[in-house]
Parts: sequence; C-alpha cells; structure tokens
Amino acid sequence: MSTTTETTMKAVNYQGAFKVKVEDVPRPKLEHPDDVIVKVTTAAICGSDLHMYEGRTGAQPGITFGHENMGIVEELGEGVTLLKKGDRVVMPFNVADGRCRNCEEGYTAFCTGVNPGFAGGAYGYVAMGPYRGGQAQYIRIPYADFNALKLPEGKEHEADFILLADIFPTGWHGVSLSGFKPGDTVAVFGGGPVGLMAAYSAQLRGASKVFVVDRVPERLKAAEKIDCIAINFEEGDAVEMILKANGGNMVDRSVDAVGYQAVVKGGQKEEPNIVLENMIKVTRACGGLGIPGLYVPTDPGAPDESAAKGRIALSFGKLFEKGLALATGQCNVKQYNRYLRDLIISGKAKPSFVVSHEINIDDAEMAYEKFDKRIEGYTKVLIHPNGGF
Amino acid sequence: MSTTTETTMKAVNYQGAFKVKVEDVPRPKLEHPDDVIVKVTTAAICGSDLHMYEGRTGAQPGITFGHENMGIVEELGEGVTLLKKGDRVVMPFNVADGRCRNCEEGYTAFCTGVNPGFAGGAYGYVAMGPYRGGQAQYIRIPYADFNALKLPEGKEHEADFILLADIFPTGWHGVSLSGFKPGDTVAVFGGGPVGLMAAYSAQLRGASKVFVVDRVPERLKAAEKIDCIAINFEEGDAVEMILKANGGNMVDRSVDAVGYQAVVKGGQKEEPNIVLENMIKVTRACGGLGIPGLYVPTDPGAPDESAAKGRIALSFGKLFEKGLALATGQCNVKQYNRYLRDLIISGKAKPSFVVSHEINIDDAEMAYEKFDKRIEGYTKVLIHPNGGF
Amino acid sequence: MSTTTETTMKAVNYQGAFKVKVEDVPRPKLEHPDDVIVKVTTAAICGSDLHMYEGRTGAQPGITFGHENMGIVEELGEGVTLLKKGDRVVMPFNVADGRCRNCEEGYTAFCTGVNPGFAGGAYGYVAMGPYRGGQAQYIRIPYADFNALKLPEGKEHEADFILLADIFPTGWHGVSLSGFKPGDTVAVFGGGPVGLMAAYSAQLRGASKVFVVDRVPERLKAAEKIDCIAINFEEGDAVEMILKANGGNMVDRSVDAVGYQAVVKGGQKEEPNIVLENMIKVTRACGGLGIPGLYVPTDPGAPDESAAKGRIALSFGKLFEKGLALATGQCNVKQYNRYLRDLIISGKAKPSFVVSHEINIDDAEMAYEKFDKRIEGYTKVLIHPNGGF
Amino acid sequence: MSTTTETTMKAVNYQGAFKVKVEDVPRPKLEHPDDVIVKVTTAAICGSDLHMYEGRTGAQPGITFGHENMGIVEELGEGVTLLKKGDRVVMPFNVADGRCRNCEEGYTAFCTGVNPGFAGGAYGYVAMGPYRGGQAQYIRIPYADFNALKLPEGKEHEADFILLADIFPTGWHGVSLSGFKPGDTVAVFGGGPVGLMAAYSAQLRGASKVFVVDRVPERLKAAEKIDCIAINFEEGDAVEMILKANGGNMVDRSVDAVGYQAVVKGGQKEEPNIVLENMIKVTRACGGLGIPGLYVPTDPGAPDESAAKGRIALSFGKLFEKGLALATGQCNVKQYNRYLRDLIISGKAKPSFVVSHEINIDDAEMAYEKFDKRIEGYTKVLIHPNGGF
Repeated sequence: MSTTTETTMKAVNYQGAFKVKVEDVPRPKLEHPDDVIVKVTTAAICGSDLHMYEGRTGAQPGITFGHENMGIVEELGEGVTLLKKGDRVVMPFNVADGRCRNCEEGYTAFCTGVNPGFAGGAYGYVAMGPYRGGQAQYIRIPYADFNALKLPEGKEHEADFILLADIFPTGWHGVSLSGFKPGDTVAVFGGGPVGLMAAYSAQLRGASKVFVVDRVPERLKAAEKIDCIAINFEEGDAVEMILKANGGNMVDRSVDAVGYQAVVKGGQKEEPNIVLENMIKVTRACGGLGIPGLYVPTDPGAPDESAAKGRIALSFGKLFEKGLALATGQCNVKQYNRYLRDLIISGKAKPSFVVSHEINIDDAEMAYEKFDKRIEGYTKVLIHPNGGF
Repeated sequence: MSTTTETTMKAVNYQGAFKVKVEDVPRPKLEHPDDVIVKVTTAAICGSDLHMYEGRTGAQPGITFGHENMGIVEELGEGVTLLKKGDRVVMPFNVADGRCRNCEEGYTAFCTGVNPGFAGGAYGYVAMGPYRGGQAQYIRIPYADFNALKLPEGKEHEADFILLADIFPTGWHGVSLSGFKPGDTVAVFGGGPVGLMAAYSAQLRGASKVFVVDRVPERLKAAEKIDCIAINFEEGDAVEMILKANGGNMVDRSVDAVGYQAVVKGGQKEEPNIVLENMIKVTRACGGLGIPGLYVPTDPGAPDESAAKGRIALSFGKLFEKGLALATGQCNVKQYNRYLRDLIISGKAKPSFVVSHEINIDDAEMAYEKFDKRIEGYTKVLIHPNGGF
Repeated sequence: MSTTTETTMKAVNYQGAFKVKVEDVPRPKLEHPDDVIVKVTTAAICGSDLHMYEGRTGAQPGITFGHENMGIVEELGEGVTLLKKGDRVVMPFNVADGRCRNCEEGYTAFCTGVNPGFAGGAYGYVAMGPYRGGQAQYIRIPYADFNALKLPEGKEHEADFILLADIFPTGWHGVSLSGFKPGDTVAVFGGGPVGLMAAYSAQLRGASKVFVVDRVPERLKAAEKIDCIAINFEEGDAVEMILKANGGNMVDRSVDAVGYQAVVKGGQKEEPNIVLENMIKVTRACGGLGIPGLYVPTDPGAPDESAAKGRIALSFGKLFEKGLALATGQCNVKQYNRYLRDLIISGKAKPSFVVSHEINIDDAEMAYEKFDKRIEGYTKVLIHPNGGF
Repeated sequence: MSTTTETTMKAVNYQGAFKVKVEDVPRPKLEHPDDVIVKVTTAAICGSDLHMYEGRTGAQPGITFGHENMGIVEELGEGVTLLKKGDRVVMPFNVADGRCRNCEEGYTAFCTGVNPGFAGGAYGYVAMGPYRGGQAQYIRIPYADFNALKLPEGKEHEADFILLADIFPTGWHGVSLSGFKPGDTVAVFGGGPVGLMAAYSAQLRGASKVFVVDRVPERLKAAEKIDCIAINFEEGDAVEMILKANGGNMVDRSVDAVGYQAVVKGGQKEEPNIVLENMIKVTRACGGLGIPGLYVPTDPGAPDESAAKGRIALSFGKLFEKGLALATGQCNVKQYNRYLRDLIISGKAKPSFVVSHEINIDDAEMAYEKFDKRIEGYTKVLIHPNGGF
C-alpha cells in the first residue's frame, strides 16, 4: 500500500552524551491496522529532549528523538476510519490506545495499553515505549484515528499548531491542575516555554493577574509581552515580591513549570523543593497548586540522597493548615488540543511567540548543541524534516 | 433578655497537662446581635482535645474544652432571624461568620472573620479564637443563624446528631477530598472515630470496596461490622495486604485519617510520612488522596528536626509519575451537615455506632483520663452537661 | 480465522407489527480489524424493543432485535489488542467508535462515527446503524476493545451483568443528569425497569429519600422492597402525595423514567408533558431534573399535532423562576458500566431483582407477545440463545 | 448614630404606567443590626425596570426603582463586622440573607429568608420584597456584610463597577449556565446590555468564536467591537446564518439573553419560544443551553393563552435526541462579582462600553421616557443621585 519507492529517510538519532546525528534509517512501516504513516512537516525540540541529550537518562544510542510532531497523512492501515491520505495532522506527545480505562476517562497520558508495565507512552523518549520520534522525515502513528488531530489544510499557523503536540496543552494543563477559575490571580514559576504557555493560558482563560517567576531576562521580557507581571528572583525573594506586587495578598493559584531541577539564586545550585515551598507560601488558604513540571522517581544527578530517590521535603503542615490541594502529572493532551486548535484558527491564540528558530533537519546537530548551551537565543526550535518552510 | 436567674454553670476546664476539672464559671452572655445562647444537651470529647489535655499545645489553664456541641436555643440576639427559642440545634466545630469570602465560597473552615490573623476558628480550642467550648451547660454561638443547624425536636438520634459537629462530616470530607466517585475502591488509613466515619461515608456513597488500615483489633472489628475489609498492619505490609485483598489492583482513592502522629508497627515509633507514603504506593495512577488527618506547621514533639518544622519527605517523583492529586484541610462542616442530618433522619445513616460512652458532666475528669489512656474501651465519649439522657 | 464450521445460527427477527420469529440466519463475520464475534450467553428484551415490535417505527422486516447483550469472545480481528478468545464480556447498547470527538469526551451515546449523519448508534435498532442485534447466537461487535467490558470468567452474576448493557447504567445516568448529590431527596417518575434502576441507583449513591411514582402495584411493591416510598398516582395527585410524604418539602432532584408516552390516571390517555410538568412542580428551587426517559422528534402516534412533531408545552416560566436545570439524553453506558460491574462483583449491587423471566431463544416469540401484553408478570426477560442457564 | 441631620432625600418613584417622578421621601433608617445605609453614588436603570414602568406588572405607585446600586457606606448597624463608614461598595441586585440553605450553597438569587413565601429578593422591584430601590440618594442594605462588595476607594471605574450589580454577572452567569468551557463556540441570542455582557464574558473566558444575534444595528455594531460575529436576523434565518459563519458546524453552547418577549423578524410580533427553538437547532449534540433571559410564570400580555400561563412549546424530542442540557434562572451575583471586580481593577475587563448616558437624578424622568422609547441611543443609563460625576 506504500506510495513511495524510497525506503530510507533522515532521522535525528541519539549517539551518546551531548551527541546527536542525522542518519539514514529505514522508513517506518504500518505495523497494526490502526496505524498511519505521517510525512513530518514540523517536529519541535523540547527541553525534555535535553535530559536524554545530556546523558542523564538510560537512553540508548540509536533512539530517534522527537515527541512534538505534525505532518501529512501518507499511508493508512486498513482499520483507520476517520483519517484519509493527505490530511494535515498534529499528534499529542502521548501515545495512547483510546481503549483502556484511563484513555476512556480522558487520562491519555496514563494509557495502560501502549507501554507494557507502565501507565503512559510517548514518541522518541526513553522508557516510554517502542515509538520512534518524529525528528525524522516520516513517523508511524499508532491508533491513529485516536492520536491524530486534524488541522485545516495548507501551511497556515504551522508554528502555532506544532505547539499543540505538547507545550501549549501542557501549560494549559498546569492551569487546570491548579483549580483555576476565571478572575483568579495566578503565579507561574518558571518562564521557559511551558511556563510561558501556562501564563498565556491563564490570560486566555480570564485570569485577573498573572505573575511569572524566573531569573532569565529574556523570559521575563516575553512574560511582560503577554501582559504578565515579571518577578525576577535574582532581585529578591520571589514570594515577597509577588505579595508586594499583589497588594499584599497571596495568589489564588500557583503553577510549577520548573520541576525537580529547580535552582536557587545564581542558577548554579539545585534545590528540588524550592518551587513547591514557594507555592505553599504564596498561595492563599483554599487555593490550589498545579504541577505540570516534571518530578522523577529516581534522579542520579540529584543534589542529595533523598532527592536521588525522588523524595522531596514539603512544609506539609502549612499546606494542610491552608487547606491547599495540589494536582500533578503529564498532560493528557487530548483533553485540550481540539479546543486550543480552534483558538488558534479563530485568531484568539497565537502561541508561536515562544518559537525562536526554524531549521532544516540537517541543522539539527547544531541546534541541539546551541539549545543545550542556551546560546544565541535558542529556546524553542522547530525542525522541518522535509523542508518547505 | 435572659430567661434564667442563675448566673453560673458547670464547665470542663483545662488545668494543665493531664488535668481537667469541672468548675463553676459565669454563664455566657450575648455579645453580638447575631449570637444565641444554647443550653447544651450533648458535647462530645474529641481525640484532638487530647492534644491539649496532654500538654503538647500552647493551651492555657482555664480554657473550656468542647468543639462538638448540640443543644437547645435558650436566648437570642436581636439580629437572629432564622432561629427561635427552643430550637434543637447542632453546631459545626468551625466558628464561621458567613460573610467573608471563604465562607461565601463554602470554605467555612477557613473563615477569615472570626480569628484575627488566621483563616479558621473553633470552639474551645487553643489558637482558634476566643470561643469557649461546649463541655459546659451553656455555650455562646456567634453568627448563630449561620452556625446552628436545626434538628427535629425531641431527643431522638441524639448520639447520631452530635457526630454532625465534627467527625461524621470530617470523615465524609476526607472521602470528598480524595475525589471519590461511586463504584470506586477506597483505602482508609486509620480506624479511629474519624477513620471509621470516612469508611462509613464511602460505604454510604457507593464504594465498591473499602479497606481500613489500623493495628487496634477493636477498630478493625468495627470496620468489619460496616462491611469493610480490615487490614492489620501488625500482620504485614499494609500496601501489600491491600493489593492482595484487591485482586492485585491498586485502589482508586485513599484517605489519611491518621495525620502527623502516624506510627509504625508496634505503635511506639512515630514516622510522620508513613501513611502518606503508603497512600502514594497504593493508589492507582490518576487516582486521588484525601487528607483530613491533621498535619501541623510546627510540632515540638516530632521525631526529628524536619518534622518539628512541619516538613515531611514525600516520594514526590512517584506521586507525579502517577498523576496523583491530593487535597487537604479541616472539614468545612456546613458543606455536608445538612445532608448527613437528613440521612440520619431517614434512617439511612446511623453513625453512633462509634460512640463508646455517655456520661454526665461530673464524670468528665475520669473520662478524659481513661480516654487518654485508651482503657476500658473509651473511644468516643458523649457528655450530657444538663443530664437527661 | 473462524473457529467453527457451522455457518448459520438462530436469531430473533422482526417480521412486521406484533410478530417476531426465530430464524436461521448466517453467522456474523469479522468485517473490520477491530471487530470481534461474541457467542451470546444472554440477551435481554428491552421495553424499547416493543416500539418496533408494535409497528410504530420504521423498522423493516428482517431486522434482528437485541441491544442488551453479553457473551464470550469467539473470534477476534487482527487489530484487537485488549481482548482475547474466551473473555466474558458485556456490551453497552451504544455502538461507539472510541475515536470521534464525542467518544473521546465520554459521550459514547452520541458517537459520530458509527451511524452516518447521526450522533449515536446501537445494535438491533431501527435507524441506529447497520448493527444486527444480539437476540441471536452470535453477534459482531465493532471497535471491540472499546465496546466490550470484561467480566470475571464463569457464570456468576449473569443476570446482574446483563443489566450493565442498558438499564442499570441508564437508571444511574438519570440520577446523574438530575445533578444528584448524596443526601438528596429524589422523586423518580416511572417504576418500570429503568425507573427501578434509577431509584436503586439513588439508594446506592446515598439518597436520603427516594419516591417512586407509578400506577402498577407490582412496580410500586418492587420499589418498596428497595426501601423507596411508593406513590400511586391512581390514588391522588402525585405532586401533592410526594409533598405530604416529604414533610411538606419539595424534593431536591427528580428523574423522568417514563418519556413521551406518559399517561394520566387510568393509564389510557397519553399526556406527553405530564411527567415533566410534575417534575417542575415537585422539585425545589435550585434543584435539578434528570431526563433519561425517551422523547422523540417525531411521533406519528401522538395524541395531538404538536406532540406528533415532538413539541411539548412546558411551564417554562415556573422552571425559570425556580432556577431549575434539566439534562437529557441516551445513556453513555461506558461512563458507568465499569463501576457498576465492580459494585456487582463486590456484592454491593444486585440489580437482577427486576428480572422476571429467563428463557431459551425458541421461546422468544411467546415472550415478546406476553411482555407486550404485560401479562403473567413479564417485565424483564433474559434470553439465553445458546442455552446453558 | 446618624451622621446627618437632614431626614429627606430625592428618589425616583413609580407613579403609574409610563410615569416616574423624582420625589422627596424620608431617608432610610437602620432597621436591623446587620443593616447599613449607603449614600448612592451611582444607580443604573435596567431593562427590567421598564416592565414595571410600562404598567405590565402589579407594581404599585410609590415604589422607588433601582436594583443596580453602588455608593459609600454612611451608617452601620451594630452587628456589622466587615464594613466601615466610608467604604465604597456595590450591591448585587439580589437581596440575600447569607444564612439560609440556598445562600450557603451559593444560590443567593434564591434566598428564602428575605421575601416570605418566595425564593429570592431584590431592591426596588415588585414582588421581590420590601426593599426600596437605589435610584435615590440613600439606600438601606440588609445583611450588609454579606450583600455589599468592597471596592477600591475613589471614583475610578465607577461606570464599570456599577455593572457588577447585575448585568455583567448576569451575562457571565448565562455563559456558566450553558456549561461553557474555554475554546467553545457560543451563540448569544440578544444583543442588549445583558446579551453584550454574555458575549463579552465568553470572550474573556476564552471562547473560540462568539456569535451575537439581534436585529438592532447599534447592538450588532457593539458586538463586533468586542470581536464577535454579528448575526442580523432581519437578513435571514439566524440558525442558518450561524451555521454558515461557523463552517457548517453547530455551536457548542448557546445563551438566551432575550427571554419571553422574543420577537420575530420586523420586531413586532412576539413568539415566546423562538429563541429557545433556535438554540435547540443551533447547538450541537452534547452541548448546552444557558438561559438567563427572563421567563415568567404568568404573563397577561402574552400573544396566546398558553404563553399567558408561562407555558412554552419546545421541540423536546429534538432536545433529547441531541442529549442537550439547559439551565435557567436569575443570576446569583455573589458567585461572580468579586472576580469580575478584580478583572476590572486589573484592566482585563471594561464592561462600561455598554453605558450610553450618565445623568443626575433630576433627569431620571426624561431618561426613563427616552429609554422606554429606545430613542437618542438610550440603552444603559447611569444615575448619580448625589451628583459628583
């Protein structure tokens, strides 16, 4: 059923610590009747790709990176009913089967059918199942009717739509996890791509004030551009600065867009609980904490033994006294992506303001290096593996 | 406006560590137009009274204990509009003003109008505001239309209704905090009065299976009587025992009815995080943790320095990996007490199975001593300060 | 891949008004990779089958009836991943693809992928798509991983589990649609199988009082057996009788388990709005109306021209004045069946009390006739097409 | 305790059909300990005042109009604890006691304590209790801590804050009643002040597209200014025009901001069910209908006998087939006003774009006349009874 005669393609493959290479690999084939093959028009590099890139995970050489993918449906399994050849689609980073209990209840990030022994799967990521990434010319999409979201045909909004694969929904999810209601005040910790998307989501959903805490001037500037109040924690205590900027009041909701690699002033020393502790302090009684930022069960590179086992010390007595709730976890992208797509189409949302670079696949090695070093403004890079943008 | 000529009454007053005394004190007077004076028919002794009794708080001698109170309206301020003399009422342990933001949103346990500088007030409790307790013949009820729940006249269901002041709603709240839905499986940690009320609430609300974890045989027996599966953690690892009894599956929800004074096998050694850690282990991905059990910001008697500051080490990486949510805090009694009252009236609920003793006020000193020592089956004691039961 | 050599089977086929016949028809075959073939152990006859039986729909002769089906997986398409041969399963009456927007949001009764031009599909029902019913020895299940719910192996609870296909979830759904919370009072209009299941669901979920309104003594007796208060509207005005039995108070929630064929006293005259009007009267301000009872867009047999077009006159001004909400629609069985199954397994729920008869397929013609005439107690009939029960 | 010596004030009093007069009346006095007296800085005229003005209600001459009120606290009862003299406040149009069941559950529009025999009270409105309106120099506010929302001192945002009394929350409420989620498409029927506020609320909360249906060019122009798509039903069928403008798709939610006086093309003929019928047609399966627009139990001026009794014929079969939900009722202003106030303060919301005129109290007679005739652009008039703006 294949429509092409070529059998190889280019892919960004991991080689070992601090090394990726664009290699020729076999093109993916249909493996299950519900699969499709997508010709990738755009794949983004994500901050979480750097965890593997830096050699701090169990990722083995040969893995193709890329869990933020979109493109054109090229080939379809015989079980596919909703998609057709030529459809432009974007895929959640989660691989989900659409038929297990968690999927049927909307928890597609915790699918039990795609990664044996674990709740959750993803493309191109260590320990997330046998799914090759999309930083390549083609990608196989399992359970494709369920996993591929249709987009308007053409090339419009490409840089916005690609963000539907992960960071826009993930930021939005963080706001949802916090129990956000319109009119609330929100403090977002972390002004990287996910933090900016969380702040942007809060704005789109009717927050009265949004604070963004970071130490990187470019990030804080970006936050101000979307009408947020920037809090530079190099200039003082983040909690006190927020209280002051909020008329002495705590905020209704806080979002952790940093995760376990949180750092203190100066940015050198990691202190895994600093963001959570600040959230407990700065959130008012009866408020909520949304935690989309990654925490891991084991972290060999942790600053202390307890953190290495994924343990974090929290001011739980204070949390209880305030009656706070907290919610965590990877984003169930499918809960939001359809609606965020429509906001993009109608012109209400334009998340691509976080994109810093668009490149061809041959420049991927260079882009990883610069992104990892945070130089030349590399913050959110889009790869176009088949050119054309 | 007073309808009686006597001006003193009996009250259970704290004297210092391990000592209460029934003393003659002035009867309470109306202090605000929205006050009423209630003649107490029943006041319960609560496990949290023992924190003060044992001298482990800053409670000063002279405080009248009692935050679980019911009785008959005796005298009314001129601002009271819904109550009338002779009404039989039960009061939430929370004192709340019904007019602050938290009250108007249903968070009456976090009222900002009754205890300056703090969110939350209660009767007869250290640091919870200037409200004398109800282990006395009379009690003043502020904002009485808001704080007093009307009951059917007479004496029926007295031992059930008194539990509406605290432990029945608190147990119910724990189930709500866990995100419970009918059909869920639930593990309740702690089989004391609140734990049993949580387990009973889960049953009333349609749980498919309820596990109760404790080490005290009487509690486990009580749990079995309400159709729960008893897990005695003296006999093995609680998590493994639940998994085994649940067909190898984790539970959907877990409830912490223990709090910061959790102990390990043998019951001697405190390990403040042991219940929370077990809940993280035993709750399935996408499930929820309800935490009505008390955690405190400072605990001088804690087993280590970190716990003394109210810090608790949690397997946060695991919590995140499973996408768990947790919610905490004192019970907003008014969110539930009306409905639980109706379940009692209709015969659907009969929570008084946890009551162990009913006494006159003169026996209060003895009852505190025996309850504190957990002897002679003293687990839930009702005082009738004006006799008659 | 077929495991049997026989190619025909018995099936209950519609012949025309008031006539079904057990005929030999070809066995179903796999038509899509995600299909399975189930050997039917039990198929129930539903009151809605009588709409077709009585010739009041556009059903064409030859259609095989049966949308409440369970059995054993016999044959699997190559796309099926979660089921295996020999699994005991029960299917929602809704056929759903698990991959359209409505399915992914839990609205499986409104699937847009299984019945072109309409939102919703079902087995063996006119206008609900090309899916043959299960009152036959075998049935084809599309999108089987999504549509089949696994059951414990063996034969236990067969008469309970079959009710998971439709009426137990539908009754439960009615309670959910009403906005029910534990402790609420509920009035259920209609004491047929769905009404009894709604009342039973309210009890399982912690209603304080449940009223069941009907005119058939057997139904009212069944309602009383599950601890409900029976309201016989032959004996007075239903609304006034409920108010009286509820201490003069309106109820919190009401459920319409009757639908458009509602009748007045005597049972002869249809008055399509009588149940809805009574619900508006008997439900308190801020309460809710759940409407699982069927209303149809066109009804040739309606008592007047307006009703024939599916129009119903409501006291909308009163509805508004009370701030009532109402919710309608077919049951999304998958939202509930997993949990209800677990309540059955744990012994908390035993819905089979509504089952009146169990028969072999050869008795189906007789059973339809008696059920249609409501004679000899035929209210809920289970067919065992392959015998063995 | 009064701080003034004058004992009379100016008030806009109803005289009979089409006649109001500014009269000298006694100043209000404290009547209950929880009362305050507010010196009115702004009172708005509402479309619903015209119902009385036009003589179509049972309003008796002498009633002072005005249920949208704000001002400065002048005098306080001794039970008031949160307010102090000089506080700038805005009051919900609902009078509520904050202590009945409905209030404690947030349904302040259905308070059972302020208007005997009815659930709900308001200022200056026939049948809504004995509360004089605020189109006067002073007004008495019952249960003032509960009913008065504090504002920042000064005069800023006066024209925005006054809309917190009714129409901004009412529009917002309509969106909530529809079950709105961010990203949804919404059709608002009616482009008057409430309709525009509903459309504006949907925009603030992240709607992807908002349609506003009306026939008055000025209203449609105002809708376009807040980024909505105007649908002029003089130019075609509203439903078809929305479908066309929405890519052939139905909308997710619809809001009725018209109520029972809905008219057909030309605007002459009333057809009470036309808006509801259009909502049923234009809303997709599984969507929701929010109905803040007023429907009344009796309407002497109705076009037919059935409507006169508040009965409306709906395509209920279609509603059911689509599984639609609908919710109705007056706005519980306190559920939203605090948050909307904060959106105004932070600059996110500026609802005053609907205000057409600001006048002194002596011009009220003229303003009523012009507003009733819809001439000279009188659409939303603010009265400043004590001057100064």
